[in-house]
Amino acid sequence: MQPYASRRERLRAKLRESGRAAMLVTRPADRYYLSGFELADPQCEETAGWLLVAARGRDLLLTDPRYEDAAKRLWPAEDLFIYAGNKWDKIGAYLGGLELGTILFDPRAVSVETHAKLAGRLALEPAPDFAGGLRRIKDAGEIERLRAALAVNQAVFDALPDMLEPGRTEADIAWEAEKFCRENGAEAMSFATIVGVGENAALPHAVPGETKITENCPVLIDLGARVNGYCSDQTRTFWVGGRPPDHFRVALEQVQLAQLRAIEGLAPGMSFAAAYALARDYFARFGVEKHFTHALGHGIGLEVHEYPSLSPTSQGALAPGMVVTVEPGLYYPGWGGVRWEHMVLITEDGARLL
Amino acid sequence: MQPYASRRERLRAKLRESGRAAMLVTRPADRYYLSGFELADPQCEETAGWLLVAARGRDLLLTDPRYEDAAKRLWPAEDLFIYAGNKWDKIGAYLGGLELGTILFDPRAVSVETHAKLAGRLALEPAPDFAGGLRRIKDAGEIERLRAALAVNQAVFDALPDMLEPGRTEADIAWEAEKFCRENGAEAMSFATIVGVGENAALPHAVPGETKITENCPVLIDLGARVNGYCSDQTRTFWVGGRPPDHFRVALEQVQLAQLRAIEGLAPGMSFAAAYALARDYFARFGVEKHFTHALGHGIGLEVHEYPSLSPTSQGALAPGMVVTVEPGLYYPGWGGVRWEHMVLITEDGARLL
Repeated sequence: MQPYASRRERLRAKLRESGRAAMLVTRPADRYYLSGFELADPQCEETAGWLLVAARGRDLLLTDPRYEDAAKRLWPAEDLFIYAGNKWDKIGAYLGGLELGTILFDPRAVSVETHAKLAGRLALEPAPDFAGGLRRIKDAGEIERLRAALAVNQAVFDALPDMLEPGRTEADIAWEAEKFCRENGAEAMSFATIVGVGENAALPHAVPGETKITENCPVLIDLGARVNGYCSDQTRTFWVGGRPPDHFRVALEQVQLAQLRAIEGLAPGMSFAAAYALARDYFARFGVEKHFTHALGHGIGLEVHEYPSLSPTSQGALAPGMVVTVEPGLYYPGWGGVRWEHMVLITEDGARLL
Repeated sequence: MQPYASRRERLRAKLRESGRAAMLVTRPADRYYLSGFELADPQCEETAGWLLVAARGRDLLLTDPRYEDAAKRLWPAEDLFIYAGNKWDKIGAYLGGLELGTILFDPRAVSVETHAKLAGRLALEPAPDFAGGLRRIKDAGEIERLRAALAVNQAVFDALPDMLEPGRTEADIAWEAEKFCRENGAEAMSFATIVGVGENAALPHAVPGETKITENCPVLIDLGARVNGYCSDQTRTFWVGGRPPDHFRVALEQVQLAQLRAIEGLAPGMSFAAAYALARDYFARFGVEKHFTHALGHGIGLEVHEYPSLSPTSQGALAPGMVVTVEPGLYYPGWGGVRWEHMVLITEDGARLL
């Protein structure tokens, strides 16, 4: 069960250090990272199960009968708790009966309702990122998987220019790109593919629709593949037709240079806000910074958006082993926009393309 | 903006009736149902925006700059609030400044962290299903969309038997089925396709993997399409090879007859627990009820799993206009399992296949 058991040992060490009895792991990516059990929940508010990692004692996997057989394939039967029916009562009674003491939970991954139902029976303490914090630094196996996911992106971006013919819709392009990824190693897309044609390129999260590519228009494409559980995320902005107009060429050059500036500047110890400022300050030289409407990037791993956010209000600093996206963009509701995105690994002395 | 405005009027009427000032709508399906704005969030803990429906006054859409242009295309600019940076501070200060009084929220769709950040500034009151409750009864336009989604399922289940050749993997079948759906009207799959070959058919939520179809094995396939935002969900269990063995034929017959029994028995006014018991009691005649390990079915609409759950512990009763799945199954870890699933509409005097 490596690497899962050794990851749980790291969490156990954190628990002992903090004097807490256990962590109730409810976030799907944390659960999978620590146990190998079910990367995804059936839907956002419906769990495939919870993991309890104890400072002292055995680690427990709690799930419902739909997953019982799957759980038995990787977890000792005596450490499995299968609930059905009045789930909260059963989980509360079971965990309460263990008399563990204070149990940590992730307040971002537990709803107000779930908390209210358990809080009467358990001593719960919010601990954001306590389990998730382990995932910030990627190990060699994870970096290899991230590279495998990124390789799918690189292949599809090589193939994409030939797909961008006038008359084709955003939805059509999104589907052809997705099909390419799925047939070239992706087990799934890591998020809903974004394709913005013309003015829709000004929507950073454009939902691909019936807008058609015309002669002479920008097409912004942001997509990612999932390989062995790990996500990639890349954006390119193309110009379809002849020579791009000046407004597009200028925006593209500013975005690409801001990105280069940021990648060259990233280093361990740098605050996330300072990382963001690398691109933002570059844009400010040209007075276009107000068209850069989002963060510089985000951590990526088992989740497509994970810690950290490279935003001006984010707390914390870069560290070796973090993998983040660097994706400056400039958006102009009049005609569209440009975004360009790479994934980079923070190293001992800087950052390099993954 | 029909039908969104009239749906908000229904919510407004409920607010006035209950003497509450406003509802903060955070669940993506509720937000979309009431506004047409963004059916999906980028990921579970990252919102595309919130809607505030007020008992008196204007309805507000709150989102971040990534969605500003999209929001402006369907919402009056003076009723839009765009937040960036310290999101919770900004939302808290903005909504707090309106001095609305008690604001209802869905405790299943707000995390403990979000609640803690807003509760100091706003008078928040949990109200599960207050907004979502409107979605329980489907209107004619919704039923039409559900039928369009189901038509994709019917087409793919007609095509599937020819795909099930020995040597092909679960993942391969899942992808071919998905491709068929996407090329025949589905804008997306409504959930992660389940394909369980052989013993994996005993996993109600089998993740399609590298297990290969052999001569003489069961294949359980559960999938759904999304069309115009609405979800379908159907399961079939096939036997690949010659004449199925008795254990399979018996299980298939029991499941199909339990399903028929349930569909014939469903009626408005019947409790959800009694609906579940229709299938469970039928299985009990043969002593196999312990192999039926999940609910009889669930509501379906903009979400693939929504109110109600037809489970033994569920509170409430069927009503005309509800659309639910009826999906009994029997699972035998030794050799596999069988599930069969239809979608039905509750009518004035019973239920009929959608």
